[in-house]
Amino acid sequence: MNVSVAIGIDLGGTNLKGAAVDRDGRILAKDAHSVAGLGPDSVMADMVGLIDRLLADASLDRSHLAGVGVGTPGPLSHRTGRIIRAANLPGWVDVPIRDRLGEMLQTPIVLDNDANAAAFGEFWVGAGRGQDDLVMLTLGTGVGGGVVLDGRILHGQFENAGELGHTIVAVDGLPCSCGQRGCLEQYASAGAVARRVVSAIQEGEPSALSNAVGKGEPIDAEHVVQCAKAGDPLCLRIWDEACLYLAAACINIQHAFNPACVVLGGGMSEAGDFLVDRVTDHVSRQRWKLHDDLPAITLPQLGYDAGVIGAAGLAWRQRA
Amino acid sequence: MNVSVAIGIDLGGTNLKGAAVDRDGRILAKDAHSVAGLGPDSVMADMVGLIDRLLADASLDRSHLAGVGVGTPGPLSHRTGRIIRAANLPGWVDVPIRDRLGEMLQTPIVLDNDANAAAFGEFWVGAGRGQDDLVMLTLGTGVGGGVVLDGRILHGQFENAGELGHTIVAVDGLPCSCGQRGCLEQYASAGAVARRVVSAIQEGEPSALSNAVGKGEPIDAEHVVQCAKAGDPLCLRIWDEACLYLAAACINIQHAFNPACVVLGGGMSEAGDFLVDRVTDHVSRQRWKLHDDLPAITLPQLGYDAGVIGAAGLAWRQRA
Repeated sequence: MNVSVAIGIDLGGTNLKGAAVDRDGRILAKDAHSVAGLGPDSVMADMVGLIDRLLADASLDRSHLAGVGVGTPGPLSHRTGRIIRAANLPGWVDVPIRDRLGEMLQTPIVLDNDANAAAFGEFWVGAGRGQDDLVMLTLGTGVGGGVVLDGRILHGQFENAGELGHTIVAVDGLPCSCGQRGCLEQYASAGAVARRVVSAIQEGEPSALSNAVGKGEPIDAEHVVQCAKAGDPLCLRIWDEACLYLAAACINIQHAFNPACVVLGGGMSEAGDFLVDRVTDHVSRQRWKLHDDLPAITLPQLGYDAGVIGAAGLAWRQRA
Repeated sequence: MNVSVAIGIDLGGTNLKGAAVDRDGRILAKDAHSVAGLGPDSVMADMVGLIDRLLADASLDRSHLAGVGVGTPGPLSHRTGRIIRAANLPGWVDVPIRDRLGEMLQTPIVLDNDANAAAFGEFWVGAGRGQDDLVMLTLGTGVGGGVVLDGRILHGQFENAGELGHTIVAVDGLPCSCGQRGCLEQYASAGAVARRVVSAIQEGEPSALSNAVGKGEPIDAEHVVQCAKAGDPLCLRIWDEACLYLAAACINIQHAFNPACVVLGGGMSEAGDFLVDRVTDHVSRQRWKLHDDLPAITLPQLGYDAGVIGAAGLAWRQRA
């Protein structure tokens, strides 16, 4: 059988995204639609339909299929192929998606965390192409992490390795919804940046965003970046502080994993050099003098496709 | 050939330690002597003599030798088998110890960082026996780290993985000799604990150690532990603070590597439960509520032999 395509799927809280990906990581077809409110049976039937459509769009059929990779926030077990819970999707409790989807499609399925899938995508054909290892931070509402070492995703004993958003960068610092204090994601996520600006304005600090906040308009990290770029002192200060904490995170990744590169992805990465240059600058101001072993700190190259490409890559790799 | 012994060597700044170790990790013979002030040729000749003596003590000879593992602080390259520099030993600049010792003994040599060797020892036949992974912190003058994942030491792209003493736990915190600020070892090493107590006393805080400090007597972490156990408020506070920072380090290890266990070794571990119970207590007070994936936090089981046993274990494993 001459398989020539793997399908990568990203199952989020509201959307199902899929892509048909060849063995070089090129997208042959992609598609997305809402699955808000659907239970596991409907979503899995939906996935099968999506996969068949993607194959047809690429002028292929199931006989060409190498496998399917599914990335989703979880919690899940990569080892047993089960989704333990799915936030925002009803009835998703301990669903053996690997086995059930595998039976429906008669093809190997691999299941992983969405941040791991995105990291694997960037490792495979994005910012880490040609390297042996890569660590990716996904800077969105929270901070996700994925660690690829020697070409394999690090899962750890309890399958929660790479949860770098909950590493502590400030002992006794800001409380986090996870139950800890001082987590990275309380300082350096898109969510935290917006939250901190709003709360400073509410405490009376002047800012170009004061009017919007006063009117109760929603503020996100993109607004903060725009105002910071325009010179707003408050936005600049909070953004720079986030970059300082991200620099500490990069240094910690350097000392823990010593990888070839660290990719700063997710919503915050849309700020581009305004993010990476500042983080790199903070790193170089204090990085350790003993060794020349700093990973390259870079932007992602696959944008929002990293997750589906990476999920497909996991299916290809499982086959190899 | 029926090989039955590997030699583990720990080359420190002043002492050369060696042990003959069987394939189950049992020490058959051990020995140590000073090599202070000696250059590489003398030390390597010394090593050969030490190895022959250890074999003879175990009623064996070179025909039984499976290999030799050498642990040393470095910096060094595991990959090329070269010691780049050796602190306190003159003339040790870029010494290809693996090849030279290998030629002298006609046996395979493996070189690694001493903290890695100790971690591997605990993983192999100590606190991590039977597990797939382990992270060890060596709490001495500074804080060393070793990471064993799936039975292998993590080296990373630049061979400096596991330098956990220089992960940042306090952004913009205390300056470290490494050039960074807020490194773990500035808060949670035996050296830092002693230093912080002395400096608090010099700033006028009362303590049972005030007299000794006033007389210029050297204070170490052991004194601090004794006084803390006896209820001295200052020593208790600084010790507890070190344990709080170690708790953050354990949580960060949990989220980064998600290993089965974290071993707290080195000088500070002589405090026993007074260390581990307090660290565990701080962890459980703030650990994250989302998952039940906390590694076991334990004391080492091999004491000061972890390094030589681990180095021998690396030689055994390289052979396998």
